[in-house]
Amino acid sequence: MTAPSPLAPKTFPDMPPVAGVRLAVAETGIRYKNRPDLLLTDCAEGTTSAGVFTLSLTAAAPIHWCQNILKHGTARALIVNAGNANAFTGTEGDAGTRAMAEAAAKAVGGAAESVFVASTGVIGNPLKTDRIAAAIPTMTASASWLDAARAIGTTDTFPKGATRTATIHGTKVTLCGIAKGSGMIAPNMATMLGFVFTDAAIPAPLLQELLTEGNRISFNAITVDGDTSTNDTLLLFATGKAGNKAATRADLVDFRRALTELLQDLAWQIVRDGEGASKFIAIKVTGAASDDAAHRIGMTIANSPLVKTAIAGEDPNWGRIVAAAGRSGEKLDVNNLVVHIGPHRITEHGGLIPGYDETPVAAYMKGQELEISVDVGIGTGAATVWTCDFTEGYIRINGSYRS
Amino acid sequence: MTAPSPLAPKTFPDMPPVAGVRLAVAETGIRYKNRPDLLLTDCAEGTTSAGVFTLSLTAAAPIHWCQNILKHGTARALIVNAGNANAFTGTEGDAGTRAMAEAAAKAVGGAAESVFVASTGVIGNPLKTDRIAAAIPTMTASASWLDAARAIGTTDTFPKGATRTATIHGTKVTLCGIAKGSGMIAPNMATMLGFVFTDAAIPAPLLQELLTEGNRISFNAITVDGDTSTNDTLLLFATGKAGNKAATRADLVDFRRALTELLQDLAWQIVRDGEGASKFIAIKVTGAASDDAAHRIGMTIANSPLVKTAIAGEDPNWGRIVAAAGRSGEKLDVNNLVVHIGPHRITEHGGLIPGYDETPVAAYMKGQELEISVDVGIGTGAATVWTCDFTEGYIRINGSYRS
Repeated sequence: MTAPSPLAPKTFPDMPPVAGVRLAVAETGIRYKNRPDLLLTDCAEGTTSAGVFTLSLTAAAPIHWCQNILKHGTARALIVNAGNANAFTGTEGDAGTRAMAEAAAKAVGGAAESVFVASTGVIGNPLKTDRIAAAIPTMTASASWLDAARAIGTTDTFPKGATRTATIHGTKVTLCGIAKGSGMIAPNMATMLGFVFTDAAIPAPLLQELLTEGNRISFNAITVDGDTSTNDTLLLFATGKAGNKAATRADLVDFRRALTELLQDLAWQIVRDGEGASKFIAIKVTGAASDDAAHRIGMTIANSPLVKTAIAGEDPNWGRIVAAAGRSGEKLDVNNLVVHIGPHRITEHGGLIPGYDETPVAAYMKGQELEISVDVGIGTGAATVWTCDFTEGYIRINGSYRS
Repeated sequence: MTAPSPLAPKTFPDMPPVAGVRLAVAETGIRYKNRPDLLLTDCAEGTTSAGVFTLSLTAAAPIHWCQNILKHGTARALIVNAGNANAFTGTEGDAGTRAMAEAAAKAVGGAAESVFVASTGVIGNPLKTDRIAAAIPTMTASASWLDAARAIGTTDTFPKGATRTATIHGTKVTLCGIAKGSGMIAPNMATMLGFVFTDAAIPAPLLQELLTEGNRISFNAITVDGDTSTNDTLLLFATGKAGNKAATRADLVDFRRALTELLQDLAWQIVRDGEGASKFIAIKVTGAASDDAAHRIGMTIANSPLVKTAIAGEDPNWGRIVAAAGRSGEKLDVNNLVVHIGPHRITEHGGLIPGYDETPVAAYMKGQELEISVDVGIGTGAATVWTCDFTEGYIRINGSYRS
């Protein structure tokens, strides 16, 4: 890994084991030298599973595999390789994914259809799964969460992990998650991966419901450059080893809180590792026709190169924010549009506030953590999205990776 | 103007007068010093008009004015100021637009409702129209097309003009057009403007039909950064002074050819002035469900920061092209996706072609004019879009304009 992003957390969190989950890492040498690039996660029998995946129509082979086995709602293992995305690799890619699942199944003593597979790295290169299959039987030693987070990284500048606890029916449960991604972007790489493990006992349909809801306001609400990947994967495994009583949705208020916090924590770490990023920005949209409309307005602002470069230049260029909202395709009332940058009100009644003074706003823009609020004045829909700024570093990294 | 873009045409074209059109320029000093920033175009009585405008919901005051008067289908004048976009300026902005139209109407001897108005420049600053109104009566000397093209520029690095001739019922007619825009983007500026004049006699409804069709495959098919502006305006005026016989659509095949060529010429000049651009790229999409679907796939590829930075780095990174097509939201057959870079076939049957050799493709990428073709394998829809690459120059210009 290169020097950590200026927005990186100071340290990797202290993450406890999750009962029923064993981690192991190995080096295959497929792309990286002298670092683990393979993660095997062994989950106890009875583990339930949930997942959300990229909507790309050029989704990678492991995506199709996971979507197919997810219907069983169970899991015995997860195998992840870094360096090759196994995307746009045809029928050979599908066969390779199956070979990875079969090798891992043999190692943990389950069916291939109980093994989730994820890949990240270069698109379009055949993946040599024989090296992976050969490495799996050697993965007997237990690894830490930090080892695991490092093994799945590609151009990440820091390992990403988060942990929370919650109570279900009076029983304490633990959640641990790891993620990778420098935004959705990276030199010829293309993947956001997130894996969350808990010892809670939660039926698969309920687990899926909670993951889908949590994903909507975490991983689905971040963007670095709008370039959705072919491999985006978020999986949640529940081993049941905490021994909580059978849980219904009503029992999971605290678990849901913990899961959402953890997912947002991981998602924000990905934004903080956005290539070239120097600012972390929350964009809050209110007053929209619906929550979905608010989300789309927020994403249009967050993906606007003009807004992102202005922020990099510490320029309170609110006109670009208004212009991005205007082209989002969602309804708004231009005469009722209220823009705030941090605590500073900028506009009202379709124009600048009377006596607008830019000095304090320009000072606010020098901070590393920024908030932009836009009320579009027609309804009650609201959403928040998170992004980073757009610097010369982004272009440098993505325009010259062949060096 | 700063140094011309490396993609700029060698010279401004030799543009003849258009009978019935008089050009005049003036300096108001509103934002720029020692350069004309105001263009008045006087059109003969009986001139018909057509227009297309930004779809932004935060469209500027002059956009609403033009949309409103366009229903008359006639025109006596066009007044354009550079330096202030009169966007997001509330009711004061509307009053200012009307004042500009009234002053120009008085000068040319028509009704205010026969005067089209366009503005380009900073968003959200009140526009001092008293200076414009004071300058208009002084605009009695005739200016050249080059003067006119320069007067409407903001951050453009070269003036943009194009001319064509066509024959209607055996009568030669002339078309002349000017445009401005560094993409749709510019430091705190935000406008693409295009104005086309012809001496042909063409009824307004037919003129509008031709302009809408031509716009679809010219200005609407270019992108620099996806940031649609608040002020985008394309107007077409026909003075009728060429004296051609009354024209129906069937008579206008040659005129339509000339108009389309002229619109594409101007649109491509805007791409060539894209901020920081070093490559001009045509993206051809075929095999889509419809022409509109092909257009949206092309635009997704053209706006992908990953694709654009790879091109800046002269990297034949076809995986990013595939990934962008996959996230466009349009149908495609991943097993039938064929990507060409220039003459080089890259993929077939959902993967790289057997024995793919990157060497000649990497050599092709060093050129200044590139073509990318993508067949998505499901239908007959086709479209071409044009864009430029994404360099550190773009970030530098847009992140630090306050210098």
